[in-house]
Amino acid sequence: MITGNILGYQISALSEKRLYASNPSTVEMLPETFVPATTAETDRAVRLAAAAFRTYRNLAGTLRAAFLTAIADGIEHIGETLVQRMMEETGYPQPRVIVERNRTCSQLRMFAEIAASEQWREIVVDPALPDRTPTPRPDLRSMMVPLGPIVVFGAANFPLAYSTAGGDVASALAVGCPVIVKAHDAHLGTHALVAEVIMNAARQTDMPEGVFSALVGDGYETGRQLVLHPDTAAVGFTGSQQGGRALFDLGHQREKPIPVFAEMGSVNPVFLLPGAVAADVEALAKTLAGSIALSVGQFCTQPGILVALRNSDTVHLLDMLKIELEKMTTAPMLHTEIYRSFHNGIESIRNHDGLNMICDVMPAPGLHTSPVLATVDATNFLNQPQLHLEVFGPFSLCVLCSDPDQMEMVASSLDGQLTATIHAAETEHNRTSDLMEVLSEKAGRIVIKGVPTGVEVCGAMTHGGPYPASTDSRFTAVGARSVRRWVRPVTYQNVPSVLLPELLKML
Amino acid sequence: MITGNILGYQISALSEKRLYASNPSTVEMLPETFVPATTAETDRAVRLAAAAFRTYRNLAGTLRAAFLTAIADGIEHIGETLVQRMMEETGYPQPRVIVERNRTCSQLRMFAEIAASEQWREIVVDPALPDRTPTPRPDLRSMMVPLGPIVVFGAANFPLAYSTAGGDVASALAVGCPVIVKAHDAHLGTHALVAEVIMNAARQTDMPEGVFSALVGDGYETGRQLVLHPDTAAVGFTGSQQGGRALFDLGHQREKPIPVFAEMGSVNPVFLLPGAVAADVEALAKTLAGSIALSVGQFCTQPGILVALRNSDTVHLLDMLKIELEKMTTAPMLHTEIYRSFHNGIESIRNHDGLNMICDVMPAPGLHTSPVLATVDATNFLNQPQLHLEVFGPFSLCVLCSDPDQMEMVASSLDGQLTATIHAAETEHNRTSDLMEVLSEKAGRIVIKGVPTGVEVCGAMTHGGPYPASTDSRFTAVGARSVRRWVRPVTYQNVPSVLLPELLKML
Repeated sequence: MITGNILGYQISALSEKRLYASNPSTVEMLPETFVPATTAETDRAVRLAAAAFRTYRNLAGTLRAAFLTAIADGIEHIGETLVQRMMEETGYPQPRVIVERNRTCSQLRMFAEIAASEQWREIVVDPALPDRTPTPRPDLRSMMVPLGPIVVFGAANFPLAYSTAGGDVASALAVGCPVIVKAHDAHLGTHALVAEVIMNAARQTDMPEGVFSALVGDGYETGRQLVLHPDTAAVGFTGSQQGGRALFDLGHQREKPIPVFAEMGSVNPVFLLPGAVAADVEALAKTLAGSIALSVGQFCTQPGILVALRNSDTVHLLDMLKIELEKMTTAPMLHTEIYRSFHNGIESIRNHDGLNMICDVMPAPGLHTSPVLATVDATNFLNQPQLHLEVFGPFSLCVLCSDPDQMEMVASSLDGQLTATIHAAETEHNRTSDLMEVLSEKAGRIVIKGVPTGVEVCGAMTHGGPYPASTDSRFTAVGARSVRRWVRPVTYQNVPSVLLPELLKML
Repeated sequence: MITGNILGYQISALSEKRLYASNPSTVEMLPETFVPATTAETDRAVRLAAAAFRTYRNLAGTLRAAFLTAIADGIEHIGETLVQRMMEETGYPQPRVIVERNRTCSQLRMFAEIAASEQWREIVVDPALPDRTPTPRPDLRSMMVPLGPIVVFGAANFPLAYSTAGGDVASALAVGCPVIVKAHDAHLGTHALVAEVIMNAARQTDMPEGVFSALVGDGYETGRQLVLHPDTAAVGFTGSQQGGRALFDLGHQREKPIPVFAEMGSVNPVFLLPGAVAADVEALAKTLAGSIALSVGQFCTQPGILVALRNSDTVHLLDMLKIELEKMTTAPMLHTEIYRSFHNGIESIRNHDGLNMICDVMPAPGLHTSPVLATVDATNFLNQPQLHLEVFGPFSLCVLCSDPDQMEMVASSLDGQLTATIHAAETEHNRTSDLMEVLSEKAGRIVIKGVPTGVEVCGAMTHGGPYPASTDSRFTAVGARSVRRWVRPVTYQNVPSVLLPELLKML
């Protein structure tokens, strides 16, 4: 395993500092020691990327596709080694790891197709109109081009799908942007295995040196240096609101500001209209419990708020939900900081007016954590904005409303969301329609029935939303359209065919 | 003429302060007094927009198209009154005013077509795959939706095409965003005439009240309040780097940041390869002089830097350019501040190492200004970054290079640009290609032969570019694609047909 930094095609480990990964199940340090990047190494990574950009941005899409496909093949090839390491570093069960691994590889292959097809270029041709009066129109052709070197921060909860070879990296590489990844401290070994695969894939497919570099972070400083580096063109981040906002501010305070796309999660409200609750309490309780507690609640789309009427069906639902949640075996959270932050979040929620704990924190070994469920009446919820904030982990707050109008008031009071979900009976279409109207101003994705967890990777996906779900609601972090974060249009006016970029020549 | 503020369908003039427009030709105040918006009026304008948004965003595109078309018709209808007023307030000659008026109307009609076609929705449908293993795919449909109320700042140099009914306003209205315009102080009368047309067009086509409001600014404070208002969703600005950056910073420092798209101009370098200079010095001098001095140099795309070899052909070109520029009749700049800023810019340029004035500032009455031309050798240019900055007005600096490699070094040293132009002989394709490679990383539009002034309004246009040409190179301020600044994607997952937005129902 490479325990240093990957700078283009070289391994570099100049610092005398050392970092360890740890096993959240046992809270024990894993044996390997990792070497964080020095200032000089970080600088070199970005400079190599800037140099590689000159070549990489002009490669045929099919060559970039071959690179991305080689990464997917390489990840599959290291198979069990990677699965084991990720299990050790995350405490995720094997099936969860394998699903994420497969998703990562199919995502890489989707972006390979996008690279090969060149559809992301969005070519527009307005041919010359030499006879137009009063002035002729010149020949105008436009296409998208890559922005430049992209810095990607690994996500704690998706060591594969949103980290070293994840969606941000794959989307940037697909459209001709070199990438510098800063590993997440919580899974340095998983990162190292994947980073090595990418380095080898780049070499094997003859990519210019510097198209990919991978750094172990020296605390906050490495990230800061990466965002402020004059050669950095944009940043991708998935994580907390605090972390995302700090990077966003850094990016915008630069002398030359750069876009920082941070996907910062949300509370993903689930609205339970009375007809849907009455229809099948048991099934609904099972569905919701599964979504609340999935992967110890460590999903950006975890449903942190349920909104229902205060009536006997809801009482029944909450009883069933309590039973379902208490049935679940505990599992460790990803790392000490997330664990602490979750429990601090619960403590700060606990003493709010009108809060009633249904499933409270349970004693458990190490970082093991059981789901927490609470209720609050809508008036108290509306009066206490702190209850609207995300508590990252297996927590859900059920907001009890006196009538459907109050449910709509709750919807209106919410911040920007990645998702908003509605469960309704067929007889409740008018009410659903009104709620959708409010929620489509708030969220990037509207889900009817179902649960917000489970983000399909496809053309129609939006994984983003109004602040604080993301820093720019005009973009998505998942799906084909996510490449838009890394490209800009260029127009060629009266450029003779021989000088036009290949893709614009024949049109 | 409405001399107060238009708040939805009401005229409001609560302040006791008064503003005057002035005639730059005579430097005399025009008779009307305008009433700047109070804090309460500004707040009301944005609140009305937020209320109108609920209705306006759901209107059929054809209805929004009718509104935009009615604005174009209304502007044409007031005909001579508007032309006269704009001439008085800008000092522009009648043909310039009429061209801009026609462009504004055809731009409004282009955006009407975009609204009616709904193409900007970028609908994507991924149908359900119920039999997919291991998990079925839900039905996913996405489309673009409008962001919300947009604040637009009128531009000094385009009182029609980039102000009250200009590109930013038309593009936002086309895609369902209400607009609040802050008038530019330099053309309050032109603004008032157009704002009244828009208010009447909104009424006539049954638009919700608040879809459009128009404010006279009370110094910097009105703009500041508009950008910081919690209901403002995004901002469009065309003007100076200082002004654009200040608004950009305000927008990003908000608790909930919003996008601020500022198009801030650039020096629009023109590279003159020796073959092109040798080919026809006279024609080239005429072409360049026309572009440098057009509308007293008051275009975002005015060529502020020429780059050529130091040889006898270039000496000849400069001689001819001097003759052409000196032939031009002087004309007034738009207002006192632009005039002062131009002359201060020239004074601060003047004393740089190696600077040689070819056409210097000439005495002229009032705000009348003649073109200024200077040369500097490339080494001095490269060593003095202040020479790379825009001096807004009829000034061009010719950078003299010892060889073509140095021309490429000059290209590499430049900041982000709206445009970059190359003149080359057919035998100079290799050199042109190398230059294009460097310049396409710097600019939003590459022009071969021709001049950067003259921005076609069409699908393939990019009017934007890397900072400081604009605050976000991923967008354009001109052309069909400019609507992207004001929209975001929403995904509908498993939404029954009856509840889907009309546009997504039948797919």
